Amino acid sequence: MSEDYQKKFHKRLSVEEVEEGNTLSPKFDENGLIPCVTTDSKTNEVLMIGYMNAEALVKTIESGEAFYFSRSRQTVWHKGQTSGLTQKVKEIRIDDDQDSIWLTVDVGGSGASCHVGYKSCFYRSIPSENQINLDLELKWEEKEKVFDPIEVYGDTPNPTKL
Amino acid sequence: MSEDYQKKFHKRLSVEEVEEGNTLSPKFDENGLIPCVTTDSKTNEVLMIGYMNAEALVKTIESGEAFYFSRSRQTVWHKGQTSGLTQKVKEIRIDDDQDSIWLTVDVGGSGASCHVGYKSCFYRSIPSENQINLDLELKWEEKEKVFDPIEVYGDTPNPTKL
Repeated sequence: MSEDYQKKFHKRLSVEEVEEGNTLSPKFDENGLIPCVTTDSKTNEVLMIGYMNAEALVKTIESGEAFYFSRSRQTVWHKGQTSGLTQKVKEIRIDDDQDSIWLTVDVGGSGASCHVGYKSCFYRSIPSENQINLDLELKWEEKEKVFDPIEVYGDTPNPTKL
Repeated sequence: MSEDYQKKFHKRLSVEEVEEGNTLSPKFDENGLIPCVTTDSKTNEVLMIGYMNAEALVKTIESGEAFYFSRSRQTVWHKGQTSGLTQKVKEIRIDDDQDSIWLTVDVGGSGASCHVGYKSCFYRSIPSENQINLDLELKWEEKEKVFDPIEVYGDTPNPTKL
């Protein structure tokens, strides 16, 4: 039960303790989730932004491998279970008001973290400092996929939702 | 109106176009927000995770400075307006399913991005690879504040909520 996992964390009793104390008291949102940014320990690149519930956060801390909560599948998910692209945790940080997590990881296998086949999920950039309109085109920052998603995931449903 | 800002983006018509196309069609959540991770262009450090609504994203793209949506104050917020710690945008990326933003920035003034006075909001780490319990203590990764929040913010209400 998620409540049992939540009991591993301190209650949030004062802003001072949350911001300047040593106790771990993460804030989960109305869906029981906390956002997590994951960066590559070697390149410092942002690989992905995911979400954790209390169970995923406890399992990540205890195992040293990244667990997330899949919002499309509504389940805790051991990253790399299907693809072999596990994320070995080098460091876990938490922010000032303890409502965001930052994981630094080493990625297994081909080193990719994106289900589309790129290394980072952030393979496109948005041109800036101009009035934007519908003609604005995203720019590709990664030219080639690192793996073939069909080979790796087969007919597993695509997690991207419209 | 937020709807007018949303009209600057394409509608999400197919998963294929969202993931592998050139059109910008960000997905805002049920509160009209998209999460944004912000990193320092010089150190590659994660400075903060914030949220943008359509207006904040448009203003960030058009101005080249970071705008966020403050959930505690429920308003669009030009980062650094009070503190002088503006974030000059070097690059804006968007992820595979276009529901997360990554900003790379140069920070003005003292270079800090955290309202508590540290450089990064992620100034504490969580020890890992052990069974966690309530005795687990966060570890300080930044030893000293970069600025004095009372001097900079005066009696502005603290954005941290319990």
